Amino acid sequence: MQRNPVQLFDAESSTYTYILSMPGEKAAVIIDPVDHNLERDLAHLQRLGLELAYVLETHAHADHVTSAGRLHEMTGARTAVPSGCGIPPAELQLNDGDSVRFGANEEIRVIHTPGHTGGSMCYLWRGNVFTGDTLLIDGCGRTDFQSGSAEALYDSVTQRLFTLPDDTLVWPAHDYKGQSVSTIGWEKRHNARLANRTRAEFVEIMANLHLPKPKLIDVAVPANRNLGLPHSA
Amino acid sequence: MQRNPVQLFDAESSTYTYILSMPGEKAAVIIDPVDHNLERDLAHLQRLGLELAYVLETHAHADHVTSAGRLHEMTGARTAVPSGCGIPPAELQLNDGDSVRFGANEEIRVIHTPGHTGGSMCYLWRGNVFTGDTLLIDGCGRTDFQSGSAEALYDSVTQRLFTLPDDTLVWPAHDYKGQSVSTIGWEKRHNARLANRTRAEFVEIMANLHLPKPKLIDVAVPANRNLGLPHSA
Repeated sequence: MQRNPVQLFDAESSTYTYILSMPGEKAAVIIDPVDHNLERDLAHLQRLGLELAYVLETHAHADHVTSAGRLHEMTGARTAVPSGCGIPPAELQLNDGDSVRFGANEEIRVIHTPGHTGGSMCYLWRGNVFTGDTLLIDGCGRTDFQSGSAEALYDSVTQRLFTLPDDTLVWPAHDYKGQSVSTIGWEKRHNARLANRTRAEFVEIMANLHLPKPKLIDVAVPANRNLGLPHSA
Repeated sequence: MQRNPVQLFDAESSTYTYILSMPGEKAAVIIDPVDHNLERDLAHLQRLGLELAYVLETHAHADHVTSAGRLHEMTGARTAVPSGCGIPPAELQLNDGDSVRFGANEEIRVIHTPGHTGGSMCYLWRGNVFTGDTLLIDGCGRTDFQSGSAEALYDSVTQRLFTLPDDTLVWPAHDYKGQSVSTIGWEKRHNARLANRTRAEFVEIMANLHLPKPKLIDVAVPANRNLGLPHSA
């Protein structure tokens, strides 16, 4: 049975954080938590009667700092990160095809989707895919820093994500227009950057975005490579 | 099986709108949609492959205008509102104990919870309660206009909502702190205004809030009593 996650929004960085759990079970997983929402996120776990088993990161973020290290210290949850993102203190270094198991019978499948960053991962759970900054609703993440590659992102989305079932729910790491969720089927047919585009067309679109450097990148990336902790983890 | 709704946020009025549906079924219900998010909400229905069966209102809102009438006109969905809220053009006037049925086997139970307004309703579906402005996360709606009554709100929450199972998920119509969801069990034990308070204590708290008049009330309430339509519905 498909099961929607709880979706939490950070208005400062327009980041979505997700809590995954099953009715009647205590074990939970959180994906991409943000440092200044630590108390809010802990309150949600408490209100829902959950115990955190894992903290997952989709990549080393450039626009906000994770609370993964603090959540690990405060709850005992294990930290799990993409192996290619340079986050040495994490307990689990995830590779393509790995599974993260929690609760009685829950399995999160790990899909390596390079493009936004070289190490970026997506996570698949019960008909939901958590796409990080790889695939956004009617958009995608930028590809111009942190080993980003438009070619790689095109291949990741078209070969790894668009081959999932059409009714798979797409839960992105960001949205800037109040949008919450999409489906693989819709994005495959309508995504403004990726649907009905050749690889060369997509690469040209991405080469001409001329985006400013993220304000927080020089602080956020080193911090996220230490799980957001000020001290050695 | 409990099934989470899709939660959509309106940053302007801090309003939550909900879409209810079951995997593999087309029929959907939307609760408390906001006028200027019409396109966004229609896009979500399209992305999720859903057809709108009902538009539900928890009450006649004072802080934003509904898109119920427009959604009805554009999708053919039936409009369903609390009978005590003075919204004559709605097709269904709901009373306590009514059920709204959609899809193959879905039932939404109607609970009359006067207090924020005299007509306010909460809606119960698959272990989720949509509490409107009656019960908020760690708070509650104000009771100083539109036939509001602190006494009635106390009775509605303590006798009608706090008697639901502890693990019932609480989905409010507003949140101002980035909080998404709570549970009846947590609110019963910890809600700052309502947990462990006598009726008299609660009434005194509500009498001393000294809240300003909502900016939109003189526009929003008449508009919502016409389902948000500029013309006669």
